[in-house]
Amino acid sequence: MLSAADRARFTVVLVGARNPQNIGAAARAMQDFGFTDLRFVNDYTAAFDAAQLGATNSAVGAAGVMRNARAFATLSEAIADCTLVVGTTAIGERTLAQKILPLQEAAPELLTGLRTSEDSRVALLFGSEKTGLTNDQLSHCAWLTTIPMFAPENARHLSMNLGQSVAVCLYELSRGGLEGAKEIPRHAAPPPTAEDRERLTQLLLDVMHVTEYTRRFPANAQEPLVRTLVQSLGSDHAEAESWMGILRQILWSARQQK
Amino acid sequence: MLSAADRARFTVVLVGARNPQNIGAAARAMQDFGFTDLRFVNDYTAAFDAAQLGATNSAVGAAGVMRNARAFATLSEAIADCTLVVGTTAIGERTLAQKILPLQEAAPELLTGLRTSEDSRVALLFGSEKTGLTNDQLSHCAWLTTIPMFAPENARHLSMNLGQSVAVCLYELSRGGLEGAKEIPRHAAPPPTAEDRERLTQLLLDVMHVTEYTRRFPANAQEPLVRTLVQSLGSDHAEAESWMGILRQILWSARQQK
Repeated sequence: MLSAADRARFTVVLVGARNPQNIGAAARAMQDFGFTDLRFVNDYTAAFDAAQLGATNSAVGAAGVMRNARAFATLSEAIADCTLVVGTTAIGERTLAQKILPLQEAAPELLTGLRTSEDSRVALLFGSEKTGLTNDQLSHCAWLTTIPMFAPENARHLSMNLGQSVAVCLYELSRGGLEGAKEIPRHAAPPPTAEDRERLTQLLLDVMHVTEYTRRFPANAQEPLVRTLVQSLGSDHAEAESWMGILRQILWSARQQK
Repeated sequence: MLSAADRARFTVVLVGARNPQNIGAAARAMQDFGFTDLRFVNDYTAAFDAAQLGATNSAVGAAGVMRNARAFATLSEAIADCTLVVGTTAIGERTLAQKILPLQEAAPELLTGLRTSEDSRVALLFGSEKTGLTNDQLSHCAWLTTIPMFAPENARHLSMNLGQSVAVCLYELSRGGLEGAKEIPRHAAPPPTAEDRERLTQLLLDVMHVTEYTRRFPANAQEPLVRTLVQSLGSDHAEAESWMGILRQILWSARQQK
């Protein structure tokens, strides 16, 4: 269960992102999963400024995250207060010196990092759209993580869209449970009972009789076959009731015509 | 392990998406995780046409998926050959009649659906950016799934960005393993041996002696303390070798000066 305290100690750092839409999308993903600390590193701040000024529709609903976001001139400054710094990479052609964990193995280690002490702060770094994190930027990281992706044989190097990467990473982090998550309504409707099914079976047998189906196809109208047929009729009590109403109406109508 | 056969039987249906960038982003997420069958339902096809004509940079690298994508006038036509149809929803204010599973519980059921028979085809439906799937569209679904999100107390209804939703859903589906995935290089470098550590310890003790550290801080220069210090020096054999080189150079330099 990812707690509010865990989330407050987690920082997303966008290093060199150049597309305001992607910055906005990252902010929105953070908002969706309850994270608040977004940092941005670039000597060129136009994209960040545009995103912060609300010039991008990808940040819809993430105004709070964008307002609190901070820009830094260097990566060292951006991560100065962080106790664990982890980089994301699409790997590509490079030989990387550091340990690389697939995201699902990285998530528990990130959580451990968040919970080491009250002063823990974990930074997850995302590189620019074009190049990802450079080797120099990667050298600031204790280790790396990657989202396992499909590699078609003849594919040129692919990397994931920045906003999508952030969303997938934050999803994985909160996958074990998210404190304050929107409640998912469980299927509240009571399931159909055996009595419902039996009443349906008898109604359907009556319908078959009245409509001459039983006479014409006696082999198909045997009670056990009909009972089996009824097993899939209606996924809850209310739907079973609806079916009974329909069958009763058919019976009524057929009897009127006689 | 999500096989190539599983992926070939999985269909993403975008119902009423209006932003070509989002359609392109959905295609790119499919490409990233090795899915190929994208379908689009809308009476207004300009967005789809734009995405298919390559007018959107969000589909970079997903030209194959976009080229094979098909547009349908109605949802019924789009899902006609599907054996399991599941809808995605952000829930919102509505009371939904159907069963809703959080994504991580939905994934194994989707996999079961893919493997029921050779003719299985599973469709996952995503609604429009503004409204999500309408009640009418939801009625085509056997059940629903939702990505658990954070719900701040005073938040107005939030939904996830379309491209990010598709990415997270496909990530979850392939989370148990992805046939044909890009290989993640495991940390190939051999770890440092106890012998490496012992050589480092002795070198560091020599350095401490030569630089007068031992004389000035004898309590800190006890061999067991230094050995403990060395435990964290270098994360693999090559790094331990680098440290030894550095220490030897310090020794050499200190001895030159005497």
